[in-house]
Amino acid sequence: MRLLTEGNIEDIALGAAVLGTGGGGDPYIGMLMAKKAIRDYGPVELCTLDELDEDDLIVPTAMMGAPTVMVEKMPNGDDIVNAFNAVGKYIGKPVRATMSIEAGGMNSVVPIYVAARLRIPMVDCDGMGRAFPELQMVTHTIHGIDATPMAMSDERGNTVLIETINNMWTERFARSVTVDMGAMAMIGLYAATVKQLKTCSIIGTMTQAEEIGKTIRAARLNEIDPVNTVREHVGGFMIFKGKISDVERRTEAGFAKGDAYLEGTDEYAGQKAQLSFQNEHLVAKVDNEIQVSVPDLITVLDSDTGEPITTEGMRYGFRVAVIGIPCSHHWRTEAGLALVGPQYFGYDVKYVPVEERYG
Amino acid sequence: MRLLTEGNIEDIALGAAVLGTGGGGDPYIGMLMAKKAIRDYGPVELCTLDELDEDDLIVPTAMMGAPTVMVEKMPNGDDIVNAFNAVGKYIGKPVRATMSIEAGGMNSVVPIYVAARLRIPMVDCDGMGRAFPELQMVTHTIHGIDATPMAMSDERGNTVLIETINNMWTERFARSVTVDMGAMAMIGLYAATVKQLKTCSIIGTMTQAEEIGKTIRAARLNEIDPVNTVREHVGGFMIFKGKISDVERRTEAGFAKGDAYLEGTDEYAGQKAQLSFQNEHLVAKVDNEIQVSVPDLITVLDSDTGEPITTEGMRYGFRVAVIGIPCSHHWRTEAGLALVGPQYFGYDVKYVPVEERYG
Repeated sequence: MRLLTEGNIEDIALGAAVLGTGGGGDPYIGMLMAKKAIRDYGPVELCTLDELDEDDLIVPTAMMGAPTVMVEKMPNGDDIVNAFNAVGKYIGKPVRATMSIEAGGMNSVVPIYVAARLRIPMVDCDGMGRAFPELQMVTHTIHGIDATPMAMSDERGNTVLIETINNMWTERFARSVTVDMGAMAMIGLYAATVKQLKTCSIIGTMTQAEEIGKTIRAARLNEIDPVNTVREHVGGFMIFKGKISDVERRTEAGFAKGDAYLEGTDEYAGQKAQLSFQNEHLVAKVDNEIQVSVPDLITVLDSDTGEPITTEGMRYGFRVAVIGIPCSHHWRTEAGLALVGPQYFGYDVKYVPVEERYG
Repeated sequence: MRLLTEGNIEDIALGAAVLGTGGGGDPYIGMLMAKKAIRDYGPVELCTLDELDEDDLIVPTAMMGAPTVMVEKMPNGDDIVNAFNAVGKYIGKPVRATMSIEAGGMNSVVPIYVAARLRIPMVDCDGMGRAFPELQMVTHTIHGIDATPMAMSDERGNTVLIETINNMWTERFARSVTVDMGAMAMIGLYAATVKQLKTCSIIGTMTQAEEIGKTIRAARLNEIDPVNTVREHVGGFMIFKGKISDVERRTEAGFAKGDAYLEGTDEYAGQKAQLSFQNEHLVAKVDNEIQVSVPDLITVLDSDTGEPITTEGMRYGFRVAVIGIPCSHHWRTEAGLALVGPQYFGYDVKYVPVEERYG
């Protein structure tokens, strides 16, 4: 167990945005909320699974919907506490701790707020090791753990509890309710015991995110190339360097979908790249050939600062580096690829691990 | 207390369709389900509120959505039992009985099925005394009783529980979930004690429906004009007799909206009438003047048989009689008219009780 204080939050958010592979939203407001909660209620205990009892119940907390909405519609904090409490009340058992369901700007810091305010620990693991756009896309699903009972709460005081026959149905109902709640909802879901999480979760994600954040910050301070430093730190591969020449966006069924086009610079001069995204980056093509695809991570970093750029933050003229990072072994199983492989997202290609092409 | 057997069901469904004012759906499949449940599990106890304890908890059961879907997508019975049980489980108290939330073809018989299958009583009252298209339009709302916790279940085994800050929000979430469940959901909602129902509910609706059904059947047997017989029985007024010359339909936000046009016959020859509906009939105009409006009941009967015609059952060429029936005193209060008066539905006219124009 170690304590998270205000000083840890920015590194976690920065590193989680690298793992967020373009999605998970801008962590800015979530970061402010988490810092304020720590200031008001004290530091948060970050535990490993081994420090808890096998039977302890853990309920992850997160935000669902369009993070861009946060600018106009602030969560008030009661909403996420309501969602968390509703799951425990429904199950009828005490909940020992919360955790992140995904590594991504916003959803890495939301559980810190919950833990600080309710004086409960946060567990150092998550269900993706990256960010994904749909609710069923967690390692819990591979291991047969239900998303439900899932609670959704808004800032007005409304709560919706969902109990479904599988996690695809949960995604369907939750997506509609999110729209009704104003394109954003605070959620509690995927209740699991510590024993279950030891098998199904991705261990150490919060610490990993914090280390990445520290690495970027240190590289900037020491004026070392931050892109290459972070790439080495995460065991990733350089896919492309270039300038964003166009971004096409469309909103489909509540998702921010689109494509970004890049013109090569440096050793990639003369080449072209295309990044296709659905909240997160799904596929990276160079000269029309798919080079990296889900479930491996495709992360876009500012060439100069190493700052991760979200899919909604990409603009014409940005100079960026695209790196590919091997995903968790959970996603490389048959069940994992059925859930989040390129074919699920409509790309008729076989998944090739990024290190096989670049290693 | 009296027992409802298979023999009572058809009269109740027929009479409830008169009170359903064009909405509430064709009771045919619900009737089959209720009859089968009585056959399998025995007759249903129909109680008055006075026969129960003041603290007894009552949870109404109903179908929400498009009754026309039932033809292709049969409820399996488990769905409505799941919805009923989910409300009691969530509240954490035993539920003593069920009741109808509205008088209408389908929703008068759904609770009979639940009562038969779970061997619990059904209470002889409802929350409308007629049918209305939206969920908040019940006398419970006037008296400050929440629709939530509301449970919605489908035939696959999915359940969604809603807990909101007011009944308008309940309507909003429930409408989206109904669409996701396949345009039809089975619901439990508006839990209330017997003490509360004595003030807020409309008493004796089931018996009233059954009496109307009996009256129509007796008139047919004795070859007496069934339209006039039922009109007298319910204390209604003859508004128009005519032939349906056109029906315009449109689907808006999950509702069946439209207008039916009638050309006068008998003493109404030369006149024209227009009926505007949203699931139920809302407004009846004769020669472009509004004659009857919500919350009073506008009921369309087959001229020859007295059979009530649902809004979705209206076809070119049908010879019909339109009768207006005074609504419950609950709806004529300021709070009642704010909830279901003509202005809520977008008609900029003052409500005039039907007996003031025709009495």
